[in-house]
Amino acid sequence: MARDAAPPLDGVLETALYVDDMERARAFYEGVLGLEAMFADSRLTAYPIGGRSALLLFRRGAATEAAHLPGGTIPPHDGAGPIHCALSIAADALPAWERRLAERGVAIEGRTEWPSRRPVASVSIYFRDPDGHLLELATPGLWPLDAAEPANRG
Amino acid sequence: MARDAAPPLDGVLETALYVDDMERARAFYEGVLGLEAMFADSRLTAYPIGGRSALLLFRRGAATEAAHLPGGTIPPHDGAGPIHCALSIAADALPAWERRLAERGVAIEGRTEWPSRRPVASVSIYFRDPDGHLLELATPGLWPLDAAEPANRG
Repeated sequence: MARDAAPPLDGVLETALYVDDMERARAFYEGVLGLEAMFADSRLTAYPIGGRSALLLFRRGAATEAAHLPGGTIPPHDGAGPIHCALSIAADALPAWERRLAERGVAIEGRTEWPSRRPVASVSIYFRDPDGHLLELATPGLWPLDAAEPANRG
Repeated sequence: MARDAAPPLDGVLETALYVDDMERARAFYEGVLGLEAMFADSRLTAYPIGGRSALLLFRRGAATEAAHLPGGTIPPHDGAGPIHCALSIAADALPAWERRLAERGVAIEGRTEWPSRRPVASVSIYFRDPDGHLLELATPGLWPLDAAEPANRG
């Protein structure tokens, strides 16, 4: 390792969204997106996604004080505004997702087809959760996350 | 698949942070965390992490209008406040990360050891980026993201 090289980072483990009403948010993330909580209390609901990522819903304002746990301290954080988060899906799952969202009255606000060297272009669809966060479902190839692909996001 | 089951979600692809000063943020994410941009313009810098995740830095206020691209439309989003995001590291990379952050004057604000069935407990350290976002580096085992482990987050 070069003298100045950073140690490796293996991926994003936790992505946090801040919600005003945890029950309303859970109804969406569980009833529409089909997630199953691995942890839930009044402050936090945590969902595993794809065996490698944790999506965390924090009740807005509930983490503005440091949390003191038996093993240490979590410093405060919070968030406002409609932030963005994208979830990976397989290309052949897109029609089923479009159907499911339509059946549940979730409007598709945007749809983008990304330039791609793949035979099938990457496609993203965009919709809102109950707090207005902008969620994206993206099929493979949007980012050059494996060696063979170029960046293509305009 | 049961009639009501959702199609699979394969992971979190994009995690977004909103920054006031892109150059200052890039100096931190590149100079301290060692990330290399795969895309950058005046609105967005995108970093690959671990070959599976994209960390996106949006200039605050730059995505409050829909973006119209050749392939479609990205609806607006934005964020305020110090949000939270955790990155995975290997257990044996933790001392090197602690040393690197100390050398670069980045204060560790919190440290937590998680209950674990593993021989070596999962450890998280917490620090801030220049916008006050709460970053965490976590060693394996914090969440039950592989089948053998229980949820342990208090």
